[in-house]
Amino acid sequence: MDLLELIRSRSSIRTFLDKPVEDEKIALILEAARWAPTGGNKQPWRFLVVRDKKKQEQFDPHFKQPWITDAPAIIIVIAAPFDTWEKYDELDHMYIQDVATATQNMLLMTHSLGLGAVWVGTFSRKEIRKVMNIPKEYLIQGLVSLGYYDKNGATNYHGEAIPNQKDRPRRPLNEIAFDGSFEKPWKVMPKE
Amino acid sequence: MDLLELIRSRSSIRTFLDKPVEDEKIALILEAARWAPTGGNKQPWRFLVVRDKKKQEQFDPHFKQPWITDAPAIIIVIAAPFDTWEKYDELDHMYIQDVATATQNMLLMTHSLGLGAVWVGTFSRKEIRKVMNIPKEYLIQGLVSLGYYDKNGATNYHGEAIPNQKDRPRRPLNEIAFDGSFEKPWKVMPKE
Repeated sequence: MDLLELIRSRSSIRTFLDKPVEDEKIALILEAARWAPTGGNKQPWRFLVVRDKKKQEQFDPHFKQPWITDAPAIIIVIAAPFDTWEKYDELDHMYIQDVATATQNMLLMTHSLGLGAVWVGTFSRKEIRKVMNIPKEYLIQGLVSLGYYDKNGATNYHGEAIPNQKDRPRRPLNEIAFDGSFEKPWKVMPKE
Repeated sequence: MDLLELIRSRSSIRTFLDKPVEDEKIALILEAARWAPTGGNKQPWRFLVVRDKKKQEQFDPHFKQPWITDAPAIIIVIAAPFDTWEKYDELDHMYIQDVATATQNMLLMTHSLGLGAVWVGTFSRKEIRKVMNIPKEYLIQGLVSLGYYDKNGATNYHGEAIPNQKDRPRRPLNEIAFDGSFEKPWKVMPKE
C-alpha cells in the first residue's frame, strides 16, 4: 500500500476484538514514534503502555468510553516539556507539536500492521495521573487505544459502519489550501 | 519502502536544488495533510503555498535562514483554532495537535516523493503575517520548506552530511517507553 493510500484508509477504530496485541507489534508502534521529527532533536515524549482493564476502567470514571475501558492496549502519550524547554522558550508549543507528530506515526504504524486505533483527546487527565502514578512534571497529551478489530464490523462513534475514512466528509483541497495568497485557492488536484 | 523504513529514513533537509517543485507533487503533499486525524473531524488547518523568493526573504529578516529564503517552495502551516473551538473547550490544545499531525503527513509524503523538507518552527510570525496578509484569526504554526535535493550532498544544520536520520542520536526505546508503570521500562525491541 502506498503512503497516500495508507493515510487515507486509516480511520478511528473504537471497537476491538478481545485479543491481546503482541509485544512485538507494540514495539514497532513505539519505534515509529521514536523517529518522529522533533525540534532540536529534544524528543519530549514518553509512552506508557497499559494492558490492565481494571486500571483502564478508572481512566474515565464519568463517561466510561468503551474504547478506553475495553481496549486491549492503551498507549498513554505523555509530554516531557522540560526536554524542549532546555533549548526553546517556555511559551513555545513545540513540545505539543512534537508529541502529536509521534502520535501520528503510531497511528499510521498501527494501521500498517492491520490493527485499529483511536486517538482519544477527551478524558480525565487527573484520574489517569493518579491511577498510573505519573509524576507531576509530565503532561498527559492523549491516549491511543488500539487492538485487533473486525474489519467488516468496525463501527464509528455513532455505531455506524466505517469501511473507509474516505467516506467521512473532508473539506476539499481548495477550501484548505491556497496558492501564494489567501485569496487564491489551490487548484491542482492530486492525481490518483 | 515500508512505513517504518520511510519514517526512519526521513531527515530534515535544509539545502535544496534550484529546481521548481511540480504542482502535482505539492497537490499530493496537501492531500496527505487533508486526511490527517482531527478531533471531531474539525480540520482546523490551512496551508498557504509560497513560491516567491522575494517574499520568502522577508519571512525571517533577522536570521535569514537559507532554508527559508532559498527553498523552492514553502508551505505555511496555519491553524484555524475556531474550527476546533466550535466543539471543544477553548483551552484545549487539540488544534495544535491536529495541525502538527497534518504536518507530519506532509513530511512523510514529501519524503515518499523523493523530495526533501524541513519543518521550521523558529521564525518571525509577525513578519510572515504581514508579508502574506494572513488574517488575525489564524495562527501560524510552522513552515515546511521543501524541494528537490542532492541526495549525496545534503547537509544538516551544521553543514555536515546527513545520509540518514538513523545517524542522529535518539533515545533508546527503554528510555522513552514503559510497560504498565513508569518504573518499568519497555523491554521488547522491534524486529527489523
